Amino acid sequence: MLITVDLGERSYPIEIEQQILPQIGVRLSELTKGRQAAVITDDHVGSLYGQIVLDSLAKAGFETFCYTIKAGEESKTFAMSETILSQLLQHQFHRDCTIIALGGGVVGDLAGFCASIYQRGVNFIQIPTSLLAQVDSSVGGKVAVNHALGKNMIGSFYQPKAVWIDLDTLSTLPERHWRNGMAEVIKYGMIVDRDFFAFLKEHSAAINCREKTAVTEMIARCCQLKAQVVAKDEQERGLRAKLNFGHTFGHGLEIASHFDYLHGEAIAIGMVLASLFACEQKMCTQAVIDELRTLLQNFHLPVAMEKALSLDDVLAGMALDKKVTQGSWVLILPQAVGQVEIVNGITQDKVRNFLESKVKS
Amino acid sequence: MLITVDLGERSYPIEIEQQILPQIGVRLSELTKGRQAAVITDDHVGSLYGQIVLDSLAKAGFETFCYTIKAGEESKTFAMSETILSQLLQHQFHRDCTIIALGGGVVGDLAGFCASIYQRGVNFIQIPTSLLAQVDSSVGGKVAVNHALGKNMIGSFYQPKAVWIDLDTLSTLPERHWRNGMAEVIKYGMIVDRDFFAFLKEHSAAINCREKTAVTEMIARCCQLKAQVVAKDEQERGLRAKLNFGHTFGHGLEIASHFDYLHGEAIAIGMVLASLFACEQKMCTQAVIDELRTLLQNFHLPVAMEKALSLDDVLAGMALDKKVTQGSWVLILPQAVGQVEIVNGITQDKVRNFLESKVKS
Repeated sequence: MLITVDLGERSYPIEIEQQILPQIGVRLSELTKGRQAAVITDDHVGSLYGQIVLDSLAKAGFETFCYTIKAGEESKTFAMSETILSQLLQHQFHRDCTIIALGGGVVGDLAGFCASIYQRGVNFIQIPTSLLAQVDSSVGGKVAVNHALGKNMIGSFYQPKAVWIDLDTLSTLPERHWRNGMAEVIKYGMIVDRDFFAFLKEHSAAINCREKTAVTEMIARCCQLKAQVVAKDEQERGLRAKLNFGHTFGHGLEIASHFDYLHGEAIAIGMVLASLFACEQKMCTQAVIDELRTLLQNFHLPVAMEKALSLDDVLAGMALDKKVTQGSWVLILPQAVGQVEIVNGITQDKVRNFLESKVKS
Repeated sequence: MLITVDLGERSYPIEIEQQILPQIGVRLSELTKGRQAAVITDDHVGSLYGQIVLDSLAKAGFETFCYTIKAGEESKTFAMSETILSQLLQHQFHRDCTIIALGGGVVGDLAGFCASIYQRGVNFIQIPTSLLAQVDSSVGGKVAVNHALGKNMIGSFYQPKAVWIDLDTLSTLPERHWRNGMAEVIKYGMIVDRDFFAFLKEHSAAINCREKTAVTEMIARCCQLKAQVVAKDEQERGLRAKLNFGHTFGHGLEIASHFDYLHGEAIAIGMVLASLFACEQKMCTQAVIDELRTLLQNFHLPVAMEKALSLDDVLAGMALDKKVTQGSWVLILPQAVGQVEIVNGITQDKVRNFLESKVKS
């Protein structure tokens, strides 16, 4: 299945198929005249799929090397990007080289950030292997690394030349990481597409079994929705902010838990918190919260804080979120299933009072 | 005087005037709603002009801080950019903040690189205080830091919101740095504008005395020429490469001399070497070399290697240049004064043989 992200001369295809990995070399040859390709991956994904990709590239005549990071958010650092940039220089990779991200969101963000700043930008290919990366982070051109003082604080908007989603890679995805991706899938239903929300409800069982037809349709729908939003607002000046539904609360939970919560788990709880907050503001009904909770639970996602976190840490994490400007907070809040609004000018005190009543601290 | 760099929605003004520094706060207020501004400068420029700028910003209601680097190319590192990014986070600077580069090319490249990757890009203002930065590096959106394995190897294309050239800052520019800028000025004449070349010849005496009228016209003409080239080819896919006349040889000399040669000095020699090479290839006449040498000498610039450098080091430095792809070299070579061509497919052996006959090693 082919979806196009329409960004003028920076447009690119998202291809969703089986058996893509062994064809990477041939596919890349069609995209670039350069003959150098670096594969960035992590130790989990690399051990499963690294050699297939490297062999395919070598067979098509590419000079290659592979750099493998330790899996996990803690590898997504400025220091790690420097290590990768040094590797590229040591291998004498030129401006016409390609950087391939083979892995989940961490690998994609890190490799994409390196691609965006190596010699002022080189070709970048996303091969997302986790559901979360396939439906979210690999599409849209946000690349970044973390800083001790905040997640994704250093980065760029940098579009890939292509996103290749090989459905076969999902067969090896651990259950917790599958659920992690489902939180972002449900988010699309909540923010812009009530029909998709209904589709997920109806096909919960099939999706939980990773049944191919349902999963393909689900991933394609997410990519389409994201591609539409990104095409209208590449640099998040308005509409795109809606994709952050659940993310300000979620980032607070991620940081306060020292990333014990996976991104999707934090976003699941974050969406519920945002809905509860909206309900208290009379923006939506209790029914919205109930529908959201039920669907999250269908996919075995958390719907409330289960870990004991410090409220101050959560708020400090939220305050670091990029959506916060000059002390006035911006939250994405639901009005109905399939409809959210960007709400400006929320004070920190209001959020603190709300959280005090909801969060076990 | 006002010049516009025409890049669609990323267009921006270059303003060339006196007495800009004390008005920075008011000017910036007109450009952004954000109320946070960080000034990046070096110890030379900062001690002369830092306080004027900070006072002006504070008076206009900006929350500010100033970060001062040690003057010189060795401050333009990835590590230094991390320090500045950390400072921005420690000061809780948000996405709507502004980063102001107050200084020469090193400060502009470093501050611009930080602006391009802080929270995926924040407002950036160039206040170039050296002639070199005013006529070259501050216009066009190339920002970067150096790596041990090559100059400007890590960077972005990132356009400022405005370039403000305060002519008053030239009064404190040391003579060697003035000459340093003149090399790039002469380059514009060589690559695209024979009339401007003639203007420089005619007004050499006035320019050497930094006579205001001649200098203003000279800077404006350079900015116009660069703005035209950048508007046609922002990301250096073709035309813009002509701006690199003298730069591949020049980078080799800079690196081999461990930056004992200032950029402009290396470029002056690099332009002569490129012309000698072109002449040997029968691309241009001896008269072109003579005209170039004479004008460079009018402005007390070197026209031949004076330092004892290793030929291998020069070639290794040249090979790291971004214009070199897959072992085939690209050089910008003159056909006449005011006209250069991009010549592909030059072998390293050819360049080595040429240099062996020219460079004292």
